Amino acid sequence: MASNNGDVKLIGAWASPYVMRPRIALNVKSVEYEFLQEQFGSKSELLLKSNPVHKKIPVLLHNGKPICESSIIVEYIDEVWSSGPSILPSDPYDRAVARFWAAYLDEKWFPNVRAAPMAATEEAKNAAVEQLKEGLALLEGAYGEISKGKDFFGGEKIGFLDIAFGSMLGWLRAVQVILGGVKLLDEEKTPGLCKWAVKFSADPAVKDVLPETEKLLEFAKILMAKMKPASSS
Amino acid sequence: MASNNGDVKLIGAWASPYVMRPRIALNVKSVEYEFLQEQFGSKSELLLKSNPVHKKIPVLLHNGKPICESSIIVEYIDEVWSSGPSILPSDPYDRAVARFWAAYLDEKWFPNVRAAPMAATEEAKNAAVEQLKEGLALLEGAYGEISKGKDFFGGEKIGFLDIAFGSMLGWLRAVQVILGGVKLLDEEKTPGLCKWAVKFSADPAVKDVLPETEKLLEFAKILMAKMKPASSS
Repeated sequence: MASNNGDVKLIGAWASPYVMRPRIALNVKSVEYEFLQEQFGSKSELLLKSNPVHKKIPVLLHNGKPICESSIIVEYIDEVWSSGPSILPSDPYDRAVARFWAAYLDEKWFPNVRAAPMAATEEAKNAAVEQLKEGLALLEGAYGEISKGKDFFGGEKIGFLDIAFGSMLGWLRAVQVILGGVKLLDEEKTPGLCKWAVKFSADPAVKDVLPETEKLLEFAKILMAKMKPASSS
Repeated sequence: MASNNGDVKLIGAWASPYVMRPRIALNVKSVEYEFLQEQFGSKSELLLKSNPVHKKIPVLLHNGKPICESSIIVEYIDEVWSSGPSILPSDPYDRAVARFWAAYLDEKWFPNVRAAPMAATEEAKNAAVEQLKEGLALLEGAYGEISKGKDFFGGEKIGFLDIAFGSMLGWLRAVQVILGGVKLLDEEKTPGLCKWAVKFSADPAVKDVLPETEKLLEFAKILMAKMKPASSS
């Protein structure tokens, strides 16, 4: 517990991209916090009490008050702490654009990162991969428009959309391996995103949060062993 | 086109709850706008050009720039125009709570308002109705906590969550009729929400936007006639 930012705890798990978002945002703001990791396959009493509606991580506990849903937590962190650069852009239109793409990632794109390796048929797998590629082409275009030649969607520094998308990079890389080397982030088709991914991963607020691909692949084995029977039944 | 707020156009349709949200928000801020209604069953060139990713209404065009996704548009309206009361609460925690429930409505609750009347079996219909009731019980609790004895989730005036939830009231009432008089908003089980619904519907920013139940029922007939064959095939 840090003395200067109140009592800040984050209920989460190291492998969840949704949990990485508030962790990166807290790092951007230099906010110290206690990381309360859930055990895989069970839910703590604290989690059930703190997020009774969804029973999902992440939950931020700020002076005991729970805040749920990763993007909402990131906006909360940005609004509460001025101890670091702004995460949301200052211009209302730019904010709307960042929120739009963050919502797109959650609703349309990331479900396919999960679906592709778990697909029951080759056809379903290929469909998920195609949708991932189409999404990345859209995001490549958005990156060109939004970053305006700078390193990040947020400009000189990582911002809301960098965090929303970048939190998924670890799993994107792992899924490329699981799918037998399918190229999703592709130097030819998504050169901007390839450069962005390298810069994002090396950012001081990010580098200790985003897991190594090898570590995620180990975890994916356990996850897929648990899930396969259910999805094929 | 009003002279004091730039060129404001809204691409939408009168019956869509998602379109009602920005319409109510623009009314709260006394912003004049041109309402460009899409024809049911087709998509205009302007819509396809303005929202190429989702191809969905509503789209706000502010001085020609498109803003998509109903909740994102409402936040944009709140940030751009100070010509009316704030829509989001001023406290970051209260903002997070309002955003949380708005997301819950979109992701978990409203899909059942659509699903219940279209359910292929009695069992599926009953399951959707049960989930609607469970959701309303949660929202009744949230209303008690958030409104703190005032009329609205937003306090004295309608705010973000009032708009997010209230935009769905017309369809909720219509679906109660379509389902043969199932009581969803219930004086005994959800007394707070019943009172809230009356106050919300009568609000000056709302009353000309929220359609009469009869009008929605007429529209629902056309909609269900178009959709039934597809969902039962």
